[in-house]
Amino acid sequence: MSDVLELTCNLIRRRSVTPEDAGCLALIGERLARAGFRVEHLRYGEVDNFWATHGLDNEPGAGPTLAFLGHVDVVPSGPEAAWHSPPFEPTIRDGLLYGRGAADMKGSVAAMVVALERFVAAQPDHRGRVGLLLTSDEEGPTNLDGVRRVAEHFRATGERIDWCVVGEPSSKETLGDLIRVGRRGSLSAALAVRGVQGHVAYPEKALNPIHAFAPALAELADERWDEGNADFPPTSFQVSNLNAGTGANNVIPGALSALINFRYGTASTAAELRARTEAILHKHGLDHALDWNLSGEPFLTPPGGVLRETVVAVCRDLCGVDPEQSTGGGTSDGRFIAPLGVEVVELGPVNASIHKVDECVALDALEQLPAVYRAVCERLLG
Amino acid sequence: MSDVLELTCNLIRRRSVTPEDAGCLALIGERLARAGFRVEHLRYGEVDNFWATHGLDNEPGAGPTLAFLGHVDVVPSGPEAAWHSPPFEPTIRDGLLYGRGAADMKGSVAAMVVALERFVAAQPDHRGRVGLLLTSDEEGPTNLDGVRRVAEHFRATGERIDWCVVGEPSSKETLGDLIRVGRRGSLSAALAVRGVQGHVAYPEKALNPIHAFAPALAELADERWDEGNADFPPTSFQVSNLNAGTGANNVIPGALSALINFRYGTASTAAELRARTEAILHKHGLDHALDWNLSGEPFLTPPGGVLRETVVAVCRDLCGVDPEQSTGGGTSDGRFIAPLGVEVVELGPVNASIHKVDECVALDALEQLPAVYRAVCERLLG
Ligand SMILES: [Zn+2]
Ligand SMILES: [Zn+2]
Repeated sequence: MSDVLELTCNLIRRRSVTPEDAGCLALIGERLARAGFRVEHLRYGEVDNFWATHGLDNEPGAGPTLAFLGHVDVVPSGPEAAWHSPPFEPTIRDGLLYGRGAADMKGSVAAMVVALERFVAAQPDHRGRVGLLLTSDEEGPTNLDGVRRVAEHFRATGERIDWCVVGEPSSKETLGDLIRVGRRGSLSAALAVRGVQGHVAYPEKALNPIHAFAPALAELADERWDEGNADFPPTSFQVSNLNAGTGANNVIPGALSALINFRYGTASTAAELRARTEAILHKHGLDHALDWNLSGEPFLTPPGGVLRETVVAVCRDLCGVDPEQSTGGGTSDGRFIAPLGVEVVELGPVNASIHKVDECVALDALEQLPAVYRAVCERLLG
Repeated sequence: MSDVLELTCNLIRRRSVTPEDAGCLALIGERLARAGFRVEHLRYGEVDNFWATHGLDNEPGAGPTLAFLGHVDVVPSGPEAAWHSPPFEPTIRDGLLYGRGAADMKGSVAAMVVALERFVAAQPDHRGRVGLLLTSDEEGPTNLDGVRRVAEHFRATGERIDWCVVGEPSSKETLGDLIRVGRRGSLSAALAVRGVQGHVAYPEKALNPIHAFAPALAELADERWDEGNADFPPTSFQVSNLNAGTGANNVIPGALSALINFRYGTASTAAELRARTEAILHKHGLDHALDWNLSGEPFLTPPGGVLRETVVAVCRDLCGVDPEQSTGGGTSDGRFIAPLGVEVVELGPVNASIHKVDECVALDALEQLPAVYRAVCERLLG
């Protein structure tokens, strides 16, 4: 059994559902310490994070820092009986390794560890600094105590990173056929529309918030927020939840609640989207309240950047594919690192099975991944 | 303590929350049997109903039948601690009798019983027939086994009623200031709109049923269904419940559900309202299902009818008010009796406190009510 496969299996066996790391970080920290890395644990609340570095100290003129970024936490397995093999028991069938986290992203984390060990063993005096930043709070609903807090700490202490490779499963069909060079921002709000409760037989004594909201909802759903740009698709708006009513069919409800979400690029700002939403609600005269939450601003690593061009070249040379360079998909922890002035690129295995029953990673991709990550180290710091 | 007050208190003490009658019907049945009434119990499912009559048999040429209609069931009290006195312990304060059902409608039922006893005692050979129809399934959500079933039975057996006085609390401020001479119909539907569930970051792979429904909802809420007519106000449409979403803000829901309700008079038919609703949903291309429920068609006792003019005159003569003759408000069991070809008028005490904490009836109105109902008997059958 190869080193990367064995480590991936050891990580899958640990039931590290967010925010638990279930020993994953200690296991990896010991290996990297043995390989000569400095390992700093950054614990916030219930969440353990660590930052392991090798090379020159974090001083001006010490050369560039390349960081790998990953998470060891996983989403819950759902009903274990629905899986063909137990989700926390790594199992190989037909060239695929099955288990929760196999693709998102314990395979990538194991590959990063193996790549870093081999790189520093072969080139102990590489230029600059190489590091691995891991969290166990990526898959949860809030991500309050993971990379968000680590990034605040880095900003406060002046910890400098130049390039960051995120191990999120980016590929569509084969390893390296898609890399992420940015992500859209995510802006949410809880909307409350107030009416006046009453009996359906006496609508003149009530104010139905469903009826009051209807034309504003239609306008919001129909609005074209922007046309996107070369880097990002047009802004997308979705009402994810809408609830009103007591259950009884003879009562006009007194309030309506909704959750809305924008996914937006650099063609609009969060402030613009907020203002335009408010304007539509005001235009319709709604008695309402909006509680906004900006969970991530968009980020983009533009073409021509050293990291982006290096990763594209590695995909071509090692994986034999010309990667699509995308800003699509959801958010990632890259959104916390990019604002520090870091070039961020995401590259990992095929994501078709993530967050699902029978999550799996292709064995050939898993075996190839340490060499891919190591090549990035060599080309940037070798 | 007067007869009507004592009987009202005895009924309030019985916790006859729908469908329980808690002995109310046996108590009244015994009294009316002693007064010479024929008492027929009509039990359907869990519900006891009875039909008590006095006078000539139900034969052609036997003269007209005047029926009083009431219910002994009550809505739940809610938290008893919220009441100033226990809801099932009748209590007099400041000229008001407090207790669940005092106004809706144990006071009316007691007044009907006392009025009927006195009327047949004074005029044992009155013309035609006088009767009392009681149910204990008026306040529940379905009303399946109450007057609905009794009316089916009457239709099947040829039981004939000419006039029906319903004891629902109709008055606004003083006894007799408003009578109901009809009721709007109630047409409901459960609406399901189907979409395709997905992740908010990939809206192109999903179909958000909230967005799809929005323009149709706005059009339905804005529609003017009819202008009403001399007898009824315009048709009213309300969405009482609207629900979509998994709770998560990153999931586009796969379905939306709504409950809708029409209150309509004789300016539109239920079939027209259904067809127009369907047409709007189809126009917007919605993948949907509608489950319709017609819980009551509108009924109207037109001006000039014998019962209506008699009740108006009694209000003027005994209560000293010229009653407003309304078709407003919710539905009542009158909707089941009217289609048998019966003139239906509703007259009862002030309804301001019904279905609320500290439900009450004014003592002076309660004491006056037996004479009011008895006067209707005398003028129609005396
Ligand atoms: Zn992930
Ligand atoms: Zn009632």
